[in-house]
Amino acid sequence: MSHQQSFEIRTRGRGTTEITAEVARIVRAAGIATGIAQVFVQHTSCSVMITENADPAVRRDLETLAARWAPDGDPAYRHDTEGEDDMAAHARSLLAGSAVSVPVGDGELLLGTWQGIYLWEHRTGAQVRRVVVTVLA
Amino acid sequence: MSHQQSFEIRTRGRGTTEITAEVARIVRAAGIATGIAQVFVQHTSCSVMITENADPAVRRDLETLAARWAPDGDPAYRHDTEGEDDMAAHARSLLAGSAVSVPVGDGELLLGTWQGIYLWEHRTGAQVRRVVVTVLA
Amino acid sequence: MSHQQSFEIRTRGRGTTEITAEVARIVRAAGIATGIAQVFVQHTSCSVMITENADPAVRRDLETLAARWAPDGDPAYRHDTEGEDDMAAHARSLLAGSAVSVPVGDGELLLGTWQGIYLWEHRTGAQVRRVVVTVLA
Repeated sequence: MSHQQSFEIRTRGRGTTEITAEVARIVRAAGIATGIAQVFVQHTSCSVMITENADPAVRRDLETLAARWAPDGDPAYRHDTEGEDDMAAHARSLLAGSAVSVPVGDGELLLGTWQGIYLWEHRTGAQVRRVVVTVLA
Repeated sequence: MSHQQSFEIRTRGRGTTEITAEVARIVRAAGIATGIAQVFVQHTSCSVMITENADPAVRRDLETLAARWAPDGDPAYRHDTEGEDDMAAHARSLLAGSAVSVPVGDGELLLGTWQGIYLWEHRTGAQVRRVVVTVLA
Repeated sequence: MSHQQSFEIRTRGRGTTEITAEVARIVRAAGIATGIAQVFVQHTSCSVMITENADPAVRRDLETLAARWAPDGDPAYRHDTEGEDDMAAHARSLLAGSAVSVPVGDGELLLGTWQGIYLWEHRTGAQVRRVVVTVLA
């Protein structure tokens, strides 16, 4: 048994948007007691990630570390079709991934107290991002 | 059809604990012939990962590389509420992830010969970690 | 309901091989309308990843960044049983992961326009790699 629903997010450039509530709503609508909820972005320059939901400084520090590994406009890049942040965005998408899966129990997301689900926009400009949530029993 | 079971692990600070046997036991208890087993930690400062199970030096080298990217006490961090290893632990959690999924066939985990499942503690102090295993048919 | 099928890939050393078509074929054979397809490698020195499928320079740049974080023959490595690329390959396997999961809708992989599924060989020599695809409804 499975339930699938998509939604769109309008990002304002690089940074994170919490989507835990949207995903939790879809899980409840699925009416599935025990299973897994998968959250997937149909893009190669943004990510879905699970991280600490209390202090926004954590997400700022993750930006710092991501930029340290894959800086914008690195002279080593050969791919720069869409600008200085283009290849950096693909690299961050590899680091953080394009999907997360969360167990579902008693019809709810089994996240720990400090875990939140975030869409992480890696491009510097605003984008519209499509998120597909699939709940499996 | 799904089967879910949780267990706790007492870590002794930064380092890895193999959990392949515990996961395999839950998969067998599930009585599911073909499907997927997902292993998820409800924390943002430890990871579950699949890596080489023969030479412990591999996991020590992964520590070295993780520390290279996200050192403890980096002056760039703004988040340090719980000490020098706090932000480094969240970063390592992003790098290695908070879940792995392994295919199940003939009722067993379809791991390769050299693959082991590890809980990777990223905090320097001992912790109690909760692991949720969900097996889907 | 689940469907599982494996295949082998002969790599020619470090680099990427697109496997989107093979995975799509297995998804179609599964006859599952809505669900998830998981693609898993039974090895700790290669990866499966989703990345941009238009410009091959993206994958070359990912090699550059992977090598920056985990260079071959780094003097810090203690594990070098199989040569200079051995530990680097395990590290890259952690960075990119050993599995991806893609939602299935209307019986097809719900990939975005620019997303492709790649086997990423991390060893410098040619290898035979086993890929397990599991489709869950």
